Amino acid sequence: MKSDISIHLPDWSAQLISGTDKTFPTRESRMSLAILLSRLNVENATGGPFGAAIFNMDTHELLSIGMNLVVSSDCSMAHAEMIAISCAQQLLGSFDLGATPCRYELVTSCEPCAMCFGAIPWSGIRHLACGARDADARAIGFDEGPKMADWKEALESRGITVETDICRQEAADVLQLYAKDRGTIYNGRHG
Amino acid sequence: MKSDISIHLPDWSAQLISGTDKTFPTRESRMSLAILLSRLNVENATGGPFGAAIFNMDTHELLSIGMNLVVSSDCSMAHAEMIAISCAQQLLGSFDLGATPCRYELVTSCEPCAMCFGAIPWSGIRHLACGARDADARAIGFDEGPKMADWKEALESRGITVETDICRQEAADVLQLYAKDRGTIYNGRHG
Repeated sequence: MKSDISIHLPDWSAQLISGTDKTFPTRESRMSLAILLSRLNVENATGGPFGAAIFNMDTHELLSIGMNLVVSSDCSMAHAEMIAISCAQQLLGSFDLGATPCRYELVTSCEPCAMCFGAIPWSGIRHLACGARDADARAIGFDEGPKMADWKEALESRGITVETDICRQEAADVLQLYAKDRGTIYNGRHG
Repeated sequence: MKSDISIHLPDWSAQLISGTDKTFPTRESRMSLAILLSRLNVENATGGPFGAAIFNMDTHELLSIGMNLVVSSDCSMAHAEMIAISCAQQLLGSFDLGATPCRYELVTSCEPCAMCFGAIPWSGIRHLACGARDADARAIGFDEGPKMADWKEALESRGITVETDICRQEAADVLQLYAKDRGTIYNGRHG
């Protein structure tokens, strides 16, 4: 019987972050990091075309990064947003980023799927910033799951603000790159 | 920067499983294991009052177990269902249980929250069996998140059958035990 779950971020991501400034003052610079993570994940063949990062909303300092690791970690919940959230929480030693002294935002290269949408209220993040639309992911064959049509309003009603279409084209270009390279479309079975 | 995520199941769970028969022929016996995991998680103070397990649908053999480890693992996504799914996938070396030669079911002591609901289509499980209702979890203060009203139909339309109210009272009793002991209600911040 398995008694632990382990997910390791790829070596290239640690190298990338160690060489960069940790402060990202504009929303475009924060999104560009999430998109760069999605692109490098494809170019290094370590996972699907999705990247995410968590930033302190006041200092704009980077707290954690994530990228899709579903295939490499044998784990369907290893979406970029889930990785960034879990790394941030385990780094700070708190299951609730909203209970820490700082406010945090999740920046993701693509709007969340049904699972990541459901995970966001539990994470304690205060703001969600999205690049590509879920329609852009569906356009290359990814299934976004059974997500309510008014998902943005559902988050807003819980005090989590939502911004969309930040560098959308740049983010969608990575999805197209992945489709062109015939990357694995890794969703589960359907009916 | 954190570059790995680790979640360890409590020692009592490995001891429990090593001492039990691995075949659970009836749906009640399978649910009783999920409920036992939820109860032992409370009694051992290792997490919230939720347990889950994955079984081979043809042989009824146990594949993996899970219990709520949100607080102990500093990870808001460490719900019982997510733990059971991730352990099963990493054990079999596949991010999609539906792509393996066998069919698997997820048995959970309580109906899934919004996140776990969204995770189920990606997991590759073919059947979901639930004990307590989400209303029973809400009754003791847990928030089930922004979950669509027709969540069962949404799973069924994806070929995942759903059974509810299996040993509901026995499962709800553990929720009440947790509330009586003033266990942590560990949801994230609200608006």
